[in-house]
Amino acid sequence: MDNLAREAAHSLTLLKNRGPLIHNITNFVVMNFTANVLLAAGASPVMAHAEDEVEEMVSLASALVLNLGTLSSSWVRAMVKAAEKARFLGIPIVLDPVGAGATRLRTDSAKIIAEKIGVSVIRGNSSEILSLATGGYSTKGVDALHDVDEAGEVARKLAEDLGTTIAITGEVDLVTDGKRVVRVANGHPMMPVVTGTGCAATAVIGAFAAVGDDPLAAAAGGLACFGLAGEKAAAVAKGPASFAVALIDSLFGLTEDELLQGARIVEG
Amino acid sequence: MDNLAREAAHSLTLLKNRGPLIHNITNFVVMNFTANVLLAAGASPVMAHAEDEVEEMVSLASALVLNLGTLSSSWVRAMVKAAEKARFLGIPIVLDPVGAGATRLRTDSAKIIAEKIGVSVIRGNSSEILSLATGGYSTKGVDALHDVDEAGEVARKLAEDLGTTIAITGEVDLVTDGKRVVRVANGHPMMPVVTGTGCAATAVIGAFAAVGDDPLAAAAGGLACFGLAGEKAAAVAKGPASFAVALIDSLFGLTEDELLQGARIVEG
Amino acid sequence: MDNLAREAAHSLTLLKNRGPLIHNITNFVVMNFTANVLLAAGASPVMAHAEDEVEEMVSLASALVLNLGTLSSSWVRAMVKAAEKARFLGIPIVLDPVGAGATRLRTDSAKIIAEKIGVSVIRGNSSEILSLATGGYSTKGVDALHDVDEAGEVARKLAEDLGTTIAITGEVDLVTDGKRVVRVANGHPMMPVVTGTGCAATAVIGAFAAVGDDPLAAAAGGLACFGLAGEKAAAVAKGPASFAVALIDSLFGLTEDELLQGARIVEG
Repeated sequence: MDNLAREAAHSLTLLKNRGPLIHNITNFVVMNFTANVLLAAGASPVMAHAEDEVEEMVSLASALVLNLGTLSSSWVRAMVKAAEKARFLGIPIVLDPVGAGATRLRTDSAKIIAEKIGVSVIRGNSSEILSLATGGYSTKGVDALHDVDEAGEVARKLAEDLGTTIAITGEVDLVTDGKRVVRVANGHPMMPVVTGTGCAATAVIGAFAAVGDDPLAAAAGGLACFGLAGEKAAAVAKGPASFAVALIDSLFGLTEDELLQGARIVEG
Repeated sequence: MDNLAREAAHSLTLLKNRGPLIHNITNFVVMNFTANVLLAAGASPVMAHAEDEVEEMVSLASALVLNLGTLSSSWVRAMVKAAEKARFLGIPIVLDPVGAGATRLRTDSAKIIAEKIGVSVIRGNSSEILSLATGGYSTKGVDALHDVDEAGEVARKLAEDLGTTIAITGEVDLVTDGKRVVRVANGHPMMPVVTGTGCAATAVIGAFAAVGDDPLAAAAGGLACFGLAGEKAAAVAKGPASFAVALIDSLFGLTEDELLQGARIVEG
Repeated sequence: MDNLAREAAHSLTLLKNRGPLIHNITNFVVMNFTANVLLAAGASPVMAHAEDEVEEMVSLASALVLNLGTLSSSWVRAMVKAAEKARFLGIPIVLDPVGAGATRLRTDSAKIIAEKIGVSVIRGNSSEILSLATGGYSTKGVDALHDVDEAGEVARKLAEDLGTTIAITGEVDLVTDGKRVVRVANGHPMMPVVTGTGCAATAVIGAFAAVGDDPLAAAAGGLACFGLAGEKAAAVAKGPASFAVALIDSLFGLTEDELLQGARIVEG
C-alpha cells in the first residue's frame, strides 16, 4: 500500500500548508491534548458545543470530529445538529464512539450519528466497534475487551452496511471501507498509558480527511502519522507523561519524507 | 505503621495487575491530569457525569471518585445518583470536597454526600474538612487557611460521627477513621504549585480503595504512593510543569519495593 | 516606557508575595493550562461557573477573568452574574472574547459583557477585537485574520468608547486605554502552536490587574511577563509540548530583575 503512504505524506504537507479548521465536539478529558495534537499536525482546532452556535461553527470548518466521551444529552443534540449541517455542506465527519457498549446513552448516540446521519470515518477500539455492529457487546469503560482480529470481518460488514470507513485501533490498526481492508502497524505500547491518544488519533484522522477525498486513505494516513510520532517519542520518553510531551513535539517536527519512509500500511 | 506500608506496596502490585476501573465525576480543570495519574498508577479511569448514564457506569467500576470542583447543580444530581448506586453495590466512594466552605453550593453538596449517602474516604485540605465539621468556616477558594494540626481532632471526631475515613493533606497528611490516626510524611513543596495534585491524590486513594478492604490503609497508602512519586519527580524537575511530567513518569515506574522502602506512614 | 517595565516587575513581586485569588470562568480546553500558568505566576486560581455560586466566589477574588471559548448560554448567564457582582465590588474584570466574530453567540456575549457591564481589560487577537468594534467582521474560528496594525486605531477608538483597556496580541502586542498606546514585543513564534497561550496571557493580565491600579500597566506588564517566559522557554524547547512545559517552568522561576531587564514595552 505504498500509494497510501504517499497519500499520507502528501496530506501532511497539505495540512501544514493550509492549516484547515477542525471543529471538535469532544470530551472534557482530552480537549486540551486534542487541540495541541491538531496544532502540532498543522491543523487549526476549534472546540464548540453550544446548540446555538455549532451550525455556524461547522460551516467555517473543513472537518467535524465528534467524540462521545463525557457525553450528556445536550451535547448529543449539539452533535446531531452539527453533523446534519456538515452532511448538508459536504464536510467530512469523523466519529469516535468512546465507551459505546458501556452505557445505553453512548451506544444509542453512536448508532444515531452513524446510522441516521452518516459519517466518513468511525474510529474506535474493537469493543466499541463491535457494540455498534451488534448493540449487544459491553465494554469495560473505555478499554477494549476484544482482539482486533476478532472484529475485522464485523467491521468490514458494518462499514459496507453504513457506507462508511471504520478504523479499529489496537496493537495493529485495521481500516476498512467495506471493500478495501488495510492494516496500520505504527504506534507504541506507551500510547494507551496516556489518556486521549485514541481520541487524538481520531482528530488527526479528521485533519487528514479535511485535506483529502478518500476516507480510507485519511484514516490510514492519520493513524500512521500519529503512530509514527509515538514511535519517535518512545525513543526519548522516561514514562507516559514525557512520552505525551515527546509525541506532540515529534508530530510537530514530522516531515513528509519521514512519514513516507516510516508509515507501515499494509493490505489485508 | 510498617503494616500500612506493606499493605500500600501490596496494593500497588494489585493495581498494576488488575487495572481496576475507577469512575470519576470530577472537575474540568483536573480531568486530564487525573486520568493520566490513574493510568500511571495502573488503574483504568473513566469520566462520566450524565445523569442518564452514571448508574450504568458505576456498576462497571471498582471505585467511585467524586470531586466538587467546578460544580453545578446537574453534576450534584449525577453524583448523588452514582453514589447511591455505588453504596447499594458496595463499591467504595471517595469524596474530594474541593472548595467546601467557599460557597454554599459546595459546602451543602459535600454535606449531602458525606452525611446522607456516606462515603469510604473524604480527602481535603484542612479548611475544607473543617467546613464539613462546622459549616461555619470559610475557605479562600481552594486553598487551605488552617494548619493541619488544628484540624486533627476535629477530623477524628468527624470521621467517627460519619463512620468514614478522613484524610487531611498538607505538609504532613493526617488520616483517621475515628479510632486510628496516622500521618503520612511523603510529598514535596512543589505539589501545591501544580493544579490538581490534591484531586489526583484523591483519585489515587480511590484506586487503592478499589483493591483493598481497609479505607484507612487505602488513604494512607494512596497518599504515600503519590507523595513518593512527587519526591522522585522533584529530583529531576526544573519547575512546576516539568515536575508534573516527572511525577506521572515516576508513578508509572514506581515499584512495590520502592514504595515499601519509601512510604513514611507513622502512628499518631 | 521604562516606568511600565518597572511597574510590571514590581507587580510580579506583589503577585508572588500575595498570591491573589483569581476567579476564572473560562473554556474547557485551557482550564488546566490556565490554572498552572496562574500558579506559576504566583497567583491562586479558582474555576467556578455555576450560576448559584459565582457571586459568592467572585466576592473572595481579587480579579475576575471571563473567557468566551466553549461557551454556552448558561455560562453566559453565570459570566454576567459574576461580572455584575465584581463590578459592584470594584474587582477588576478581564475579558477574552475567544472566537468573537465567528458565531453570533460569541460576538453578542462579548458585546453584552464589554458594553453593558464594562470591564477593565479586553484581550484578543485582531479579528476578535475588530468584531467587537464593528460586529461585521468574521473570524476563522479562533485565529486572527487581520494584522495587528490594521486594528490599532480601531482598538484605540473602541477603548475610548467603552472606557476600557484593549490588548491586541500578535507578533507584537498593542495595548491602549484610548489615550495611551503601547506595544509589547515579548513572545515567541512557538506560542500560537500551543493551545491556550492567548487565554493564559489573559489570565496573567488578570493576575497583574489584581495587584495594580492601572489596567494599561497590568495588560502591558502581564503580556511582557508571559511573553518573556515564552522567550526563555524557546531556548530549551524541542517542540510545542516541551515549549509549554518550559514556559510554565520559566514563569515560575522568573525574577523581578529578569522582568525589569527583559520587558520590551515601547510607546506608540
